[in-house]
Amino acid sequence: METIKYQLPESEVPKFWYNIAADLPQPPHPVLHPGTGQPVGPDDLAPLFPMGIIMQEVSTERYIEIPEPVRDILVQWRPSPLYRARRLEKALGTPAKIYYKYEGVSPAGSHKPNTAIAQAFYSKNEGVKRISTETGAGQWGSALSLAGSFFGLEIEVYMVRVSYDQKPYRRAFMESFGATCVASPSNQTNSGRAILEQDPDSTGSLGIAISEAVESAAQRDDTKYALGSVLNHVLMHQTIVGQEALKQFDMADDYPDIVIGCTGGGSNFAGLVFPFLGEQFRGGKQVDIIAVEPENCPSLTKGRYAYDFGDTGNLTPLVKMHTLGSKFVPPGFHAGGLRYHGMAPLVSLVTELGFVRPRAYTQLKTFSAGIEFARSEGILPAPEANHAVAAAIDEANRCKEEGSERTILFNLCGHGYFDMQAYTDYFSGNIHDQAYSSEEVAMALAGLPSVA
Amino acid sequence: METIKYQLPESEVPKFWYNIAADLPQPPHPVLHPGTGQPVGPDDLAPLFPMGIIMQEVSTERYIEIPEPVRDILVQWRPSPLYRARRLEKALGTPAKIYYKYEGVSPAGSHKPNTAIAQAFYSKNEGVKRISTETGAGQWGSALSLAGSFFGLEIEVYMVRVSYDQKPYRRAFMESFGATCVASPSNQTNSGRAILEQDPDSTGSLGIAISEAVESAAQRDDTKYALGSVLNHVLMHQTIVGQEALKQFDMADDYPDIVIGCTGGGSNFAGLVFPFLGEQFRGGKQVDIIAVEPENCPSLTKGRYAYDFGDTGNLTPLVKMHTLGSKFVPPGFHAGGLRYHGMAPLVSLVTELGFVRPRAYTQLKTFSAGIEFARSEGILPAPEANHAVAAAIDEANRCKEEGSERTILFNLCGHGYFDMQAYTDYFSGNIHDQAYSSEEVAMALAGLPSVA
Repeated sequence: METIKYQLPESEVPKFWYNIAADLPQPPHPVLHPGTGQPVGPDDLAPLFPMGIIMQEVSTERYIEIPEPVRDILVQWRPSPLYRARRLEKALGTPAKIYYKYEGVSPAGSHKPNTAIAQAFYSKNEGVKRISTETGAGQWGSALSLAGSFFGLEIEVYMVRVSYDQKPYRRAFMESFGATCVASPSNQTNSGRAILEQDPDSTGSLGIAISEAVESAAQRDDTKYALGSVLNHVLMHQTIVGQEALKQFDMADDYPDIVIGCTGGGSNFAGLVFPFLGEQFRGGKQVDIIAVEPENCPSLTKGRYAYDFGDTGNLTPLVKMHTLGSKFVPPGFHAGGLRYHGMAPLVSLVTELGFVRPRAYTQLKTFSAGIEFARSEGILPAPEANHAVAAAIDEANRCKEEGSERTILFNLCGHGYFDMQAYTDYFSGNIHDQAYSSEEVAMALAGLPSVA
Repeated sequence: METIKYQLPESEVPKFWYNIAADLPQPPHPVLHPGTGQPVGPDDLAPLFPMGIIMQEVSTERYIEIPEPVRDILVQWRPSPLYRARRLEKALGTPAKIYYKYEGVSPAGSHKPNTAIAQAFYSKNEGVKRISTETGAGQWGSALSLAGSFFGLEIEVYMVRVSYDQKPYRRAFMESFGATCVASPSNQTNSGRAILEQDPDSTGSLGIAISEAVESAAQRDDTKYALGSVLNHVLMHQTIVGQEALKQFDMADDYPDIVIGCTGGGSNFAGLVFPFLGEQFRGGKQVDIIAVEPENCPSLTKGRYAYDFGDTGNLTPLVKMHTLGSKFVPPGFHAGGLRYHGMAPLVSLVTELGFVRPRAYTQLKTFSAGIEFARSEGILPAPEANHAVAAAIDEANRCKEEGSERTILFNLCGHGYFDMQAYTDYFSGNIHDQAYSSEEVAMALAGLPSVA
């Protein structure tokens, strides 16, 4: 029997998160206060985040211990399997070896619970009763709802109005775990009311939802805010993915030449890639790292590396990242998790330093790749993950042309069970690649804060 | 760290299926030809099934080897985890230990691929090009579509018209794996055309869809038929579930006092229960076995143990089973996998012999139990599985009242990701328990074939 699955025992769930800040060739750029232009300190963030999280956000320690109550829950579905895609290799006729790390085994169906559980733990640990957050497509809101139910925390999710109306199943999933899901803009916050006054029929945006969730947390002592991507601590919580993969490659007596992840805010990408990049920074093997983003929201390939706000309402501090401008609203497309205007500062930095090759794909290409993958491997990927699948297939085909036996690894960060409308649209020919307007990007970039 | 997961290594995927026919206190009743009233032989079944499957259907060998190409695929998600529901135990405050075997880890999200892979293999092995089948809610059609894509077989699924229209996502899932999904009744078969002539707006039924799939297979040399439950070989393919659970209880140094499964056609129930019952038949520990069915389709608790047809169109042979009559159409409810008018003959026999305690639950009770489970354990069960969850909670509460420390095991046969409409209806108060009409059951039973 040829091995297709590398399954670590549960004792191998990582005991530490890996912090790439310890190994970077240069320190990360500081987060700035938008008013003063000065670096923000832990106290500035205290109204929004529990101190345990803030200290992780600014830490330069290489390894940070994962609390036992967090591991007690992660072990339910971790270590996640590393698969060798032998049937796909055969279908492609490639000499390449294709591996994928599968995060769809989590109860929320994606990598998001890896950080949601940790964030809920630190809030609970500091006496927080309630966490507010925003969600677009719903993956993050689902994961935090799950985490809230484990720790007995109230979860308040501001869900972009258009998704709230179009995706009642996501809402039902969050409510199943006891969360409250509010259509944003709402009447519950000043920022929501201000929008509704101007436009009572506003369909909302991720930026507005962030403003509402931040405001909700800032106004109540018993409430903190949680973010599902972008920030340093979120990326660090995801490094258990890459750490497990490293051990699984030991089992397979192999090592990747190429490592691939899709990028929206950057957390699933960093989770897989940073532990490999860390090995490289500490003298280990150099790997070819590919970040794949949608052509409709190409922050890494077409954005500017500059200081910008994290939200449309410009309530957050400024971070240095690849950005399309905080006012940029991408045209509609199905990979809802890849619609962010910016990129995680740490992912932006390593890309700027030349350690990552970014590329952008059209929707049609990614769906076609996802179907090809599903028919060989039996798992229907989430539309976001299809971006990584498409790059893995491209690289495998390149190996076939060149007759080279490279080892490819990609992150299959979630399954597509909640995204069947996207596949229905694909099969009925209703997916079109709407080119984003360069004028729009230029306009949004023109509005970058002056500190940039 | 308290153990919550018992994960066997992949080398422990069972190498044999367990055939309970070898250990039964009395031989199963023969399958009868409806015209002659005489037992049917393998040759009678040859137009519909591959011979490898037929020989399993009639075998009395205790163990039948699982072909390596089948195990090569099963290993992708097997052995499935056995979980200790410690958080649920705590929430209930019960001294009982609650374990569940989780089959939602398969790529189709339920136990169905365990037999779909095997059936596709035997068809492929005998040169079959195409498999026809029916599906109601879509779990079985999804699993066979997946299996077909692995073995390069064309899959033709007759999907009950009302589900075809109401569940476009299930259809999209099957099409993702290359299957053809046809709304039944269709114009592609005589039985379909006959129905449409009488009623062009027919919403279809499982019985009609079976007739169409059977006819499609009987008419083409390159096509066989596949069934997802009820028959002996299907139940046997599911026994890998219970065999793994036995080994996992060895790991846990425990053994169940109570084993619970939900019953529609009987396959997930038998898959978990038969290996434990086999131990008991061969002198092992006696277990309290509970079968849970919906009050809206109560074949085991209110049906008659008699010979009946497997389909509404009365094209199949006669089998002895608990039945509500082949013309019985249950009122609408959400556990689509539990809507069959009869029960697997082997499950019926062991129930009739007193080895199984059947019970029936209302929908509202099962959804309430599913939500309680999800909030503790993080997994939202399929509506079918909620029946088993409800019984496990009832038994755990009984242990609390009695102060007894029993060990409870149930089969969580699938997750609810594809069933969010059901949960949406539940939260919005749109689930009502429509009492079935005793007159309807009496009428359907009055129509039982005379051989009964």
